[in-house]
Amino acid sequence: MAASAGPEIERLIALLAKLPGLGPRSARRSALALLKRRDQLLVPLAQAMTAAAEQVKTCSICGSLDSTDPCSVCSDRTRDGALLCVVEEVGGLWALERGGSYRGRYHVLGGLLSALDGRGPESLRVGELVARAGSGEVREVILALPATVDGQTTAHYLAERLAQTGAAVTSLARGVPVGGELDWLDDGTIAQALRARRPA
Amino acid sequence: MAASAGPEIERLIALLAKLPGLGPRSARRSALALLKRRDQLLVPLAQAMTAAAEQVKTCSICGSLDSTDPCSVCSDRTRDGALLCVVEEVGGLWALERGGSYRGRYHVLGGLLSALDGRGPESLRVGELVARAGSGEVREVILALPATVDGQTTAHYLAERLAQTGAAVTSLARGVPVGGELDWLDDGTIAQALRARRPA
Repeated sequence: MAASAGPEIERLIALLAKLPGLGPRSARRSALALLKRRDQLLVPLAQAMTAAAEQVKTCSICGSLDSTDPCSVCSDRTRDGALLCVVEEVGGLWALERGGSYRGRYHVLGGLLSALDGRGPESLRVGELVARAGSGEVREVILALPATVDGQTTAHYLAERLAQTGAAVTSLARGVPVGGELDWLDDGTIAQALRARRPA
Repeated sequence: MAASAGPEIERLIALLAKLPGLGPRSARRSALALLKRRDQLLVPLAQAMTAAAEQVKTCSICGSLDSTDPCSVCSDRTRDGALLCVVEEVGGLWALERGGSYRGRYHVLGGLLSALDGRGPESLRVGELVARAGSGEVREVILALPATVDGQTTAHYLAERLAQTGAAVTSLARGVPVGGELDWLDDGTIAQALRARRPA
């Protein structure tokens, strides 16, 4: 680590290095930046972390993170309760909310099935999903899972489990992303976009 | 930002995004990682930051950061007080200490001269450096400044200012870094390594 810095700095660097995207070198840079801007950044960030640790709750309905339980999406009565969008993690929910076009509700799965990591359905919020989908209110379950092997395995499994609920099960469309140059796209995406072609 | 998360999460993301190397996207990932590992990471990091904000001081002699003032290097009597190494920032001091081969003392300049940013000698710890170098104890001042235009301008200026003190002024050697393939080195480094060639 920093070798000649005090134990407080060493500990700060060691913990910062555990953040995703930061390694030992960038953790040292971050620690220095924090210590240089003590009143503008270090103290406010410490307070924001303490506040988040105390205030942020997991929504008992959808599994999202928010200051309130139920979360702001679940308690928003203008939302369409007939649409239920399944995401892997809260990050996916945030991404869809930034898009701004979805007005239904969510269900955070808490991960994906993974044979490699030995993660089965019992470690995900599958039972809660089936119960919500079968409550009668939900008309369509949209699977917004990543286009990876684990994501598609999970989608396949969920589609089977949800068949009994009577809700329609759909997936996000695959195709060319907005602004996507064909030259830069992988072959799998081009093949899928071609198969799913539509009248212009 | 995250749109549908509470104010605590929004604030946490906004502050994390100010760390060097983190942008809005990686700040969101970091916030989620922190909230998922609340007791193992979020709370300890908040405490480490609070402790650092309270305990870490700027050394009144060399300008380094440490839990004590004077810092552990300045108060280490086994260090060679005849050698004084000038670094731009604390990060440079840490890098030299990790190297482990330097046993002299340091002087943190607090920046570099920059015509572009309008930073003159009065905003750096130049006066303190000249005073320390002229105290009689210092035999050699080693300029460990970056090999950039600003770094070399600063080194040139310091060499002139330090001429009156009687201490010898040296710079870090320029050349091929350890493990450096000639193929991958820039032309300037190769030219300097060639000019400064030594008997094998």
